Amino acid sequence: MLTATFAPPVCVLGLGLIGGSLLRAAAATGRHAWGYNRSPEVVHAARDLGFDASTDLTATLERAADANAIVVIAVPMPAVGSILEAIAEHAPDVALTDVVSVKSEMAAAVAAHGLSRRFVGGHPMAGTAESGWAASTVDLFRDAVWVVTVDDGTDPEVWQAVADLAIDCGSVVVPAESAEHDAAVARISHLPHVLAEALALAGAAGGDLALGLAAGSFRDGTRVAATAPALVDAMCEANASALLVALDETLAVLSAAREQLADGSTADLTRAGFDARARYDQQARVPITGVVPGEGDWLTALREAGRRGEVWAR
Amino acid sequence: MLTATFAPPVCVLGLGLIGGSLLRAAAATGRHAWGYNRSPEVVHAARDLGFDASTDLTATLERAADANAIVVIAVPMPAVGSILEAIAEHAPDVALTDVVSVKSEMAAAVAAHGLSRRFVGGHPMAGTAESGWAASTVDLFRDAVWVVTVDDGTDPEVWQAVADLAIDCGSVVVPAESAEHDAAVARISHLPHVLAEALALAGAAGGDLALGLAAGSFRDGTRVAATAPALVDAMCEANASALLVALDETLAVLSAAREQLADGSTADLTRAGFDARARYDQQARVPITGVVPGEGDWLTALREAGRRGEVWAR
Repeated sequence: MLTATFAPPVCVLGLGLIGGSLLRAAAATGRHAWGYNRSPEVVHAARDLGFDASTDLTATLERAADANAIVVIAVPMPAVGSILEAIAEHAPDVALTDVVSVKSEMAAAVAAHGLSRRFVGGHPMAGTAESGWAASTVDLFRDAVWVVTVDDGTDPEVWQAVADLAIDCGSVVVPAESAEHDAAVARISHLPHVLAEALALAGAAGGDLALGLAAGSFRDGTRVAATAPALVDAMCEANASALLVALDETLAVLSAAREQLADGSTADLTRAGFDARARYDQQARVPITGVVPGEGDWLTALREAGRRGEVWAR
Repeated sequence: MLTATFAPPVCVLGLGLIGGSLLRAAAATGRHAWGYNRSPEVVHAARDLGFDASTDLTATLERAADANAIVVIAVPMPAVGSILEAIAEHAPDVALTDVVSVKSEMAAAVAAHGLSRRFVGGHPMAGTAESGWAASTVDLFRDAVWVVTVDDGTDPEVWQAVADLAIDCGSVVVPAESAEHDAAVARISHLPHVLAEALALAGAAGGDLALGLAAGSFRDGTRVAATAPALVDAMCEANASALLVALDETLAVLSAAREQLADGSTADLTRAGFDARARYDQQARVPITGVVPGEGDWLTALREAGRRGEVWAR
């Protein structure tokens, strides 16, 4: 990344799987990067590997304000409120982003602390079943999709800086409004978990005979049911209203299929499902062209491009 | 297989993916094996590879009757009636089995033609998205689970012969009553297809934005929605009543989860689903011991063993 050494420094708040990986990835591009974590064990582990980390939130934020760093909120949603309070007190004017998996609730929390002016939401669609600093890696974001929000009032310079950071970390940037992001991930990330849990239950209700006959379709369809329940709860519950929409739609689809099956046919469901899966398989990552952040109706243009499945390239 | 050359010959009716693979596998064990297919092209293709095949159903069955062969019905369900009619006329006393994926409907058709006395149902849980003789292979059944039915009145010698054939082909034998088999495969084979179709539809309803954000959980959860719709219809529609039971159960599970989610929690679903998937992961193939076909209440003993997930070994 030729531009990276001229890029703004990065201050990461929270050094778990995502925040830790971001500190590693940002440092690897040659940026000045430092992090905060409340746990001394995590901070020592990061320092032992040569990273710049601290348990002092106030000092970390004052340094970010002095250096005009991008501040990245990388703590779980329940901890976001107290972090935003500290930012409002010690670094109210920094460029601000986050890596939390729900975007509307995050944007609302930022607004409640009067920090919306220089905030642009982010969500790298990367993760593993692991968590914590020990699981973080420099290449977690390589070839991942990183959503960067384009809500009304977005500052174009901050947007560009956040998109650059995502691209420096190896990701592809997809622009989306916060509410659209939440609706989309409910469909393709949270609903799959709900259906996998339900399928696992249906199989186990058939006892060891059914489980003993299970092959590829059951194994693949239940794979994510092996995820730690608390992680699935955290994702689904934080995005409950969007997930309810997707789940209600699916209940209606399955109820209609049930009625057709009672009449002896599954043809409508299987044809529509086959076409839907084919559309997924045929997706291509077309680069967005002709949009300059800050020029013209750039937010509308980026939203429309994101809806077409296009990606932001530098 | 040291015993194979002394094992009965095998006559396979229908040389598609399953029947063709069975002809290849049976011949490979050193058994006398021959097949019938109504299509001259298929018969020529099989003969070109050195297999013994014919388009003459009557002659094929008369030969099976003379040689005291095991006759295997390997045609699709809609063609089963006319095949059974020919067997009743030309080879009414042979040992009879099948490889059709639904067992209750098959057993009823066999009974309707007066052929139940020497019939034992079979279902090798093997297959690919491909079909036809061209897709058949000698090792399709290697390490597969092959259900052999243990319905009331089952002839122990025929049962043993069918189980031996399955084991010779490289499979593991699971004993189950026809109705229990159908209920089990509805849960672990047909329901996964229905849920995959519904998930694909939910993703596509989110447009290219949602599909562009989709990662592992969506990809795995929709994999079998890429199966040809007609194949999925054939499986699901032939097992409609058992699939309706499993689907209704799942609709109830998802509706309950929906109500809990509306109250902000997914904890009940995720814990139960996690435990169910763990039970699947922990399944072991314990061999059945202490049962001799024909001795004592062997059918009950085999049914109970199958329900415990145990497998028949020679």
